[in-house]
Amino acid sequence: MSLDLESVTDPATYVAEPGLKTVSIGELSFETGGYLPEVELAYETWGTLNANKSNAILIQHALTGDTHAASSEALPEAGWWENIIGSGKAIDTNKWFVMAVNMVGGCYGSTGPASLDEKQQAYGSKFPFVTIRDSVNAEAKLANILGIERFHAIIGGSMGGGRALEWAAMYPDRVNGVGVIACGGQSTAEQIAFAQTQVDAIRLDPNFKGGDYYDGPAPVHGLGIARQIAHINYRSEPELNARFGRAFQGNENPLESAVTSRTGRYQVESYLDYKAKDLAGRFDANSYVALTEALMSHDVGRHRGGQAAAVAGITATPFIVAVNSDRLYFPEQSYQLAADFGPHTPVHMIDSPIGHDGFLTDLHQVADAMITTLGL
Amino acid sequence: MSLDLESVTDPATYVAEPGLKTVSIGELSFETGGYLPEVELAYETWGTLNANKSNAILIQHALTGDTHAASSEALPEAGWWENIIGSGKAIDTNKWFVMAVNMVGGCYGSTGPASLDEKQQAYGSKFPFVTIRDSVNAEAKLANILGIERFHAIIGGSMGGGRALEWAAMYPDRVNGVGVIACGGQSTAEQIAFAQTQVDAIRLDPNFKGGDYYDGPAPVHGLGIARQIAHINYRSEPELNARFGRAFQGNENPLESAVTSRTGRYQVESYLDYKAKDLAGRFDANSYVALTEALMSHDVGRHRGGQAAAVAGITATPFIVAVNSDRLYFPEQSYQLAADFGPHTPVHMIDSPIGHDGFLTDLHQVADAMITTLGL
Repeated sequence: MSLDLESVTDPATYVAEPGLKTVSIGELSFETGGYLPEVELAYETWGTLNANKSNAILIQHALTGDTHAASSEALPEAGWWENIIGSGKAIDTNKWFVMAVNMVGGCYGSTGPASLDEKQQAYGSKFPFVTIRDSVNAEAKLANILGIERFHAIIGGSMGGGRALEWAAMYPDRVNGVGVIACGGQSTAEQIAFAQTQVDAIRLDPNFKGGDYYDGPAPVHGLGIARQIAHINYRSEPELNARFGRAFQGNENPLESAVTSRTGRYQVESYLDYKAKDLAGRFDANSYVALTEALMSHDVGRHRGGQAAAVAGITATPFIVAVNSDRLYFPEQSYQLAADFGPHTPVHMIDSPIGHDGFLTDLHQVADAMITTLGL
Repeated sequence: MSLDLESVTDPATYVAEPGLKTVSIGELSFETGGYLPEVELAYETWGTLNANKSNAILIQHALTGDTHAASSEALPEAGWWENIIGSGKAIDTNKWFVMAVNMVGGCYGSTGPASLDEKQQAYGSKFPFVTIRDSVNAEAKLANILGIERFHAIIGGSMGGGRALEWAAMYPDRVNGVGVIACGGQSTAEQIAFAQTQVDAIRLDPNFKGGDYYDGPAPVHGLGIARQIAHINYRSEPELNARFGRAFQGNENPLESAVTSRTGRYQVESYLDYKAKDLAGRFDANSYVALTEALMSHDVGRHRGGQAAAVAGITATPFIVAVNSDRLYFPEQSYQLAADFGPHTPVHMIDSPIGHDGFLTDLHQVADAMITTLGL
């Protein structure tokens, strides 16, 4: 069990890609009391905003996602929803002006804990607590600047689903249709429990230093463990067992060494080490903590008399999707959300053996229903 | 997310209870190459061994379990299988001589990493890698010393189920019946994956020092996180959500503080903090690592041509039990094991909403079947 992160020499590779647009939305007061004198939001766009600005669709990324939902001329690499966004695809960029915003608190171009304050020092531990509602507030300011009064649709998966749902709840007059993919109306006890272990692992890393680590090595080990815990829940037990079983990694032997220092690994451990390294090399630990806390804050019913009452105030047409093997956002939670929208609200089911990550790989399965429901 | 372990002042409270029996089994060579010149095993007993020593039943504890399966005059506190072991109970101590042995590598009386070597120093990082088969070998030596040639039954839950199954595979002539409760024939990819995150969290604790921490503070934070990850999987998602939901703990507010240092907690976090503290105060981190590795080594088919071939060599009558809400040892794994025993081997199902831990709380549900199957 050797999480070798020595090759992660430059965790600062999570700086924004060139090609991103960045706009200052000015000051931002946060829901739980925080305040920043100036916040920038980074975003990507596809297609062209029409003259009366009525063809905008907002795509919301997940916890460690970014704005790169689809390829573009400026950024030709495939995006995470490449299957459904593009010319001639379900979300047709010949017809729609599509945009994706990096969430405030993140590390892909928008203001986050690694950003510099007025004294040119990283915010670190001084960064405010962020909620999903804060992210929506910030994005609404961006929409104002762009002159977009109303989105034809706001669609997101996992945490992005929570961000989309909150948009519809906070600004019912600004959202025609809302796509909530692999996400319920609130984060559950189990999600909070697993999140706790992840954040605690980051805090346990001696390099974390309470969040003020930017002048030293990054807490990549704690972040790596957090990612591993999370990633197990992004997949399904049968998939992990079918792919890896108890196989040993290459010539390594996990039964060979002294117990406290063994270096041989099972294949599934090597796989998770790769996932840990990958995230540690591209994501800021403080952003991971901030966005994880934001996701745990997700509760559309908070201060609105509960989920049913909150959903009753939503006027956008709902498009609700679950993955049948998801054991992080169980389909039951999507069914509950759909029921709160009304007795005839269907849950569109992605059939995938891989678990939660099916929302990334297989959303195209329900593309026809999405086009019909959201009028795309 | 504040794992306050300051109250855990004396992690050495995991020393053996008075009332335990301890016997030296002499030297022990371990499966993967380790060697100890002298190993002691601690055990408890209930009832009386008959003249021809034919009424012995061995009860096998789980990962962080101990020998205290039931109360006794010497140790009147209720045991973890109090429901089924005792005078007039399913495993009737008026009839049977029941014993439970602390596994080698553990910290409840048997030789483990915290034990002293010949130089009177704790083994720590020098403690050998332990497999389930090593534990069976050690216990067979103890049985030899006690003159027990054959057990009427060996019964265990979770890791104890693996220990029982290995007994039946290694010593078919010494086991009449084998009870494998909430455990399959091998540890799966997902179990290995979650175990990796737990062991890595312990290793990340600055107090761990590669396993040689006995002259300083114990790595209670890492151990606590490990326990929390494990414990979430010992329960079920619906149970956690029904018990805790998104409720805040007392007057605490998890949305209130700065993101990297928040102290307010959700109720489910407080619950897991309690579980972490409880284990950190009673269990040695090195033993947790050693026994976790042993559990991950569990594979009855290893070097025996696979699980089906290994099970074909078992002559003991199988008694196989699963918990219908278990998502750590899925019932499917018990069904596979039963199928390998033969087409008419039933899986007895505990009906419980709480998940894996149902094997501790509700084994009495299948007591009648156990009595019939194992001839108790």
